[in-house]
Amino acid sequence: VSGFVAVVGAGPGDPDLLTLRAVRLLDEADLILYDALVSPDMRRLAPRGRWFFVGKRAGRPGIGQDAIHRLLVRAARRGLRVVRLKGGDPFVFGRGGEEALALAAAGVPFEVVPGVSAAIAAPALAGIPVTHRGLASGFVVVSGHAESAFRPILDSLEPHAATIVVLMGLASRAQLVSVLLARGWAPGTPAAILHAASSPEATAWIGTVGALATATLPEMLSDAPGTIVVGRVVSLANTISAARTVPESRLAAGRGR
Amino acid sequence: VSGFVAVVGAGPGDPDLLTLRAVRLLDEADLILYDALVSPDMRRLAPRGRWFFVGKRAGRPGIGQDAIHRLLVRAARRGLRVVRLKGGDPFVFGRGGEEALALAAAGVPFEVVPGVSAAIAAPALAGIPVTHRGLASGFVVVSGHAESAFRPILDSLEPHAATIVVLMGLASRAQLVSVLLARGWAPGTPAAILHAASSPEATAWIGTVGALATATLPEMLSDAPGTIVVGRVVSLANTISAARTVPESRLAAGRGR
Repeated sequence: VSGFVAVVGAGPGDPDLLTLRAVRLLDEADLILYDALVSPDMRRLAPRGRWFFVGKRAGRPGIGQDAIHRLLVRAARRGLRVVRLKGGDPFVFGRGGEEALALAAAGVPFEVVPGVSAAIAAPALAGIPVTHRGLASGFVVVSGHAESAFRPILDSLEPHAATIVVLMGLASRAQLVSVLLARGWAPGTPAAILHAASSPEATAWIGTVGALATATLPEMLSDAPGTIVVGRVVSLANTISAARTVPESRLAAGRGR
Repeated sequence: VSGFVAVVGAGPGDPDLLTLRAVRLLDEADLILYDALVSPDMRRLAPRGRWFFVGKRAGRPGIGQDAIHRLLVRAARRGLRVVRLKGGDPFVFGRGGEEALALAAAGVPFEVVPGVSAAIAAPALAGIPVTHRGLASGFVVVSGHAESAFRPILDSLEPHAATIVVLMGLASRAQLVSVLLARGWAPGTPAAILHAASSPEATAWIGTVGALATATLPEMLSDAPGTIVVGRVVSLANTISAARTVPESRLAAGRGR
């Protein structure tokens, strides 16, 4: 068998935040199985590969996890070089662990390529460091796809003990806020809603926990994944993001010299 | 002023895990200020830049944080393209937030380039997904540099509620274990100590919380940063890492076809 599968993190969206290894694997790939969080701009990086969508879109259920496993195994056994491309990092709520186990069980050669996680990068690109001296000495990452996914962790955590990052949490904002307030978080705690972090369409709402549930977002975002950040570090967002330059223009200017 | 500063995450060590943007910035850089967690292999990526070490080494105190801020501001004002290269992600215990604030206060143009964080990548490269259905629906990242940095967060967290990742925690293993056991974590909870994650010298110790403090590590590691992972997800490490192929050889083989 010369086929193999690389389970690869695509980062937060901007192709410039792909790793060198991801780019090399895409360049050589015969088949790319990708999900909804992967930017269409990445297609140009896989000139000879066939792209096959296996994610969920706008409320419609996606192809099942077992079916993805079967596709990966079959393609590798046919000798294809397969990239399983997942938004962010493949082992952060990406079910990458399940895919790795399925590949291991099938005896298919595979590797895992970590990516830049939106849990850290989405806040960073909005000027929010998840840790900062005097403000947060650690951070907690949970999934917001269902209350049962974040409630046990947030219920147990002392209020204000750490920065909280909620991935895919836009739809469950109201439940998130009620869990936090019931646990004793101050309604005035800074909070942010970040969307499309590393793309030109990036939006950042900066407010408080008290206003998080009712924040008015652009309509397009109501169904989007998005990242929520709660904690004192959010107070740095305006200072850091206002001062920062736009990287692309600077790089383009630098290149000419 | 044509100078600027890019605060750039270098990832867990392997230059292949740098982002495209990091590589481009290094290629164009006049000056690179780097810390101890940055791999020497990255130097070839900055052919024209001057490399200047500003980290801490083996117990000796490094240059102070204020001095780093002054260096960054002065170099940018002199018109240099400066890369501030930090291991992992610059906003995860990297004091990148402080540097961004100092640059903002000085009116120096800057950008922040997220990197692959060792908090996620070190476990991943050892076959440990920080989240996994049925095993962990979230994770907590703390710094192990001092007990005061991790104790408040771990004391507050319900045992087994989430995967725990401790960065730079080798020296404080004993305190970590006593905090966890006192909080009610089972001594049999799987735990791992990972070092030099993405390098050829990578080592992974897989055991339990009960054995974490007294695990015998190669002597060279006693002073190394290292990453500690605690939680049920560690139980997947052997299955995933044993099955995985070595990526470099596979890539090299693939390239020839």
